Amino acid sequence: MKLSGEDLLLGKILKGLPDSKDLVLGPGDDCAVVRIKSGLLLLKTDCLVENIHFLRKEDPKRAGWKALCRPLSDIAAMGGKPLHALITLFSPPELDPAYWEEFYKGIRKAARKFGVTIAGGEMSRQPCGLAVSVALTGSVSKRFAPRSGGSSGDVLFVTGELGGSLAGHHLDFVPRLKEGQWLTTSGFANAMMDLSDGLGSDLPRLARASGCGFDVHLDRIPLRRGSDVQAGLTDGEDYELLFAVSPNKSSQLVQKWKSAFPRVRLTDIGTLNGTGSAPQNWPGGWDHFTVVRTTRLGQRSREPAGKPRRQRGGQ
Amino acid sequence: MKLSGEDLLLGKILKGLPDSKDLVLGPGDDCAVVRIKSGLLLLKTDCLVENIHFLRKEDPKRAGWKALCRPLSDIAAMGGKPLHALITLFSPPELDPAYWEEFYKGIRKAARKFGVTIAGGEMSRQPCGLAVSVALTGSVSKRFAPRSGGSSGDVLFVTGELGGSLAGHHLDFVPRLKEGQWLTTSGFANAMMDLSDGLGSDLPRLARASGCGFDVHLDRIPLRRGSDVQAGLTDGEDYELLFAVSPNKSSQLVQKWKSAFPRVRLTDIGTLNGTGSAPQNWPGGWDHFTVVRTTRLGQRSREPAGKPRRQRGGQ
Repeated sequence: MKLSGEDLLLGKILKGLPDSKDLVLGPGDDCAVVRIKSGLLLLKTDCLVENIHFLRKEDPKRAGWKALCRPLSDIAAMGGKPLHALITLFSPPELDPAYWEEFYKGIRKAARKFGVTIAGGEMSRQPCGLAVSVALTGSVSKRFAPRSGGSSGDVLFVTGELGGSLAGHHLDFVPRLKEGQWLTTSGFANAMMDLSDGLGSDLPRLARASGCGFDVHLDRIPLRRGSDVQAGLTDGEDYELLFAVSPNKSSQLVQKWKSAFPRVRLTDIGTLNGTGSAPQNWPGGWDHFTVVRTTRLGQRSREPAGKPRRQRGGQ
Repeated sequence: MKLSGEDLLLGKILKGLPDSKDLVLGPGDDCAVVRIKSGLLLLKTDCLVENIHFLRKEDPKRAGWKALCRPLSDIAAMGGKPLHALITLFSPPELDPAYWEEFYKGIRKAARKFGVTIAGGEMSRQPCGLAVSVALTGSVSKRFAPRSGGSSGDVLFVTGELGGSLAGHHLDFVPRLKEGQWLTTSGFANAMMDLSDGLGSDLPRLARASGCGFDVHLDRIPLRRGSDVQAGLTDGEDYELLFAVSPNKSSQLVQKWKSAFPRVRLTDIGTLNGTGSAPQNWPGGWDHFTVVRTTRLGQRSREPAGKPRRQRGGQ
C-alpha cells in the first residue's frame, strides 16, 4: 500500500519523539488523545511566519527551536508547566522535505528540554510561503498571575536584558519556565506577561489589563549589549518576563531571586500607578498592523548617555 | 492609552462570544485558562489556507464556519464532544479588517451551534496571503474508535454522500458530531475517521492503521448528485464518517440508525480484509504533496454506468 508524500514526511519527522505516559493516542489519527487530571489547563496557540519571525536562509533547527519556545514563553508567563503540543506546518509544495526534518530537530530538542509531549502534527500546502502554528496545553496552579492582577503601587520587574534580539537571541532564547513557576508559586508576581512585542507595547497591555498607568525609569531598562533605550523598548522578541510585585515584597524578592536564579538579571524598572494611562511620548512597540509607529522616542536616535528621561504616566 | 491595530481588531472580533463556566481566563492574556475534569482530552489542530481550502471572493462567513467545522469533524470521528477553540488568523496587512469581522461571524455561528468555547485568538501578519489555524480540545469516553480499531471482516460504512464538495458542501457542511458520539457510545464503531481527503486516500489510512486491506463495491459508493465514482473517491472535503463495524453487528446498526438518524444516509460499501494492502488500481485521493496522482481509475474518465468494478485487496 503506497503512502502519500504528506503521510511519509509526517511519519518521518514525527518518528522518535519521546514517549509519554499520558499520551493515549499520538500522531496519525483524527485527534490526539491525552489523559488529564482535574484542575486548570492552559491553552495557547502561536505562529511563526516566514519573513516575519524567521528567514528561510536561517538554520531550520534554530527556527524549529523558536517555534516551540515562543508559546512556551507564554506558558512561563502564567507560571505554568507545559504538557502537549500540536504542530501545523504550512509548506510550499516545492520545498525540500529535508527542510522540515531539520526544523523538527529543533522542535524535538526544545520538547525534550522542557518536557513537552508532541501529541500531533499536521501539514498543509501553502503556495505562498512557510508558516508554522503551534498549539500548547499546560497545567497551572490556582496562583497563576494574569495580566490583570496588578495594583497601583506595585513594583515592575523585568528579567534578563532587552533589545537587539534580531542579532540571534530571537532564535536561541530559553523560555523563562522555571522563573515563571517560581514567581507564581512563591506568590511574588501579582501580574505577569512575557515580552514578545517589546516593553513599549507590552507594558501598556499589562497596565491596561490591571486598570493602571505606569512610571518607568528609562535609564534603568536593562539593555542587551549594543542596544539603546529605543531598541530596548521597541525591538521586541525579548521573551523575558515582565511582572508586578506588591511594594512590601519587592526587596524580599530581590534577595531570594539572587539565590534562586544567580545567573538571571532582575531589574526594577518602575511602578504601576493609578492614572490609568501611559506616560506621554511612550513609544509603541512592534505591532503587526501598524506599519508606522505613531509615537517615537526620537527618530531612533541614540538616547544620549547620562541623560535619562523619566517618563511619567497620566500627563 | 492607545490601543494598537491588532489589539483593537482582536477586541472587536472576540467581543460577544458566548460565556462559558469553565473559561477561567479568556482572550487577551498570555494563555487561556480553562477548568477541566479528569479523563481523556482530545487535542486537534487544523488549518485553512487561501486558494487551497477557500477563496477570498467567497463569503467570509461561510469560510469562518468551515474553519471551525473542519476540526469539529475530526472531533466527531473520535465520538468526542468539543470544548475549547483557539484561533490564529494569518492576515496580509492590507486586508480590510471587516473581512475578519465577517469571518468571525461564521466562527461564532458554528461555536454556538456545537457548544464550543472560543478561549483565545491570535493574529499575525502574513504578507503572502490569508490562512487560519484552529486548535480544539474535546472530551471523549474511553470507548472512542481510533483508526487502528478495525479487524479483518469488519463491515465498512460511510455516512451521507461523497464527491462534488467544491460546489458548496465544503463551506456549509455540518460535522457529524451527534452521529460520531452515537456510534462510539453504542459500541458499533470499532474504527472510525472523517473523510477529508477523499475515500480514495482516507480508506487506505484506516485500513493500514488497522493492519488490514479492504474490498470496496465501487457501485455502492453513495454519490452526491452530479458526481461519478472517481469524484466520490478523490474529490475530498466530504466531511462524512467512515467506520468499521463487526460483521455480527452490522444489520442491527442499519436498523437502529434509521430511527436515530432518519435523514442521514448510511451505506455499507465493503469490508476490511486480511491482505494488508489496497486493491489493485485503487485511486489515491487528494494529497497536498503529490501533484500528479500515481494511480488512477482511468484518466478521470467517467466510470461506465452499469459496469461497476469490484476492487479486491492484495492482488
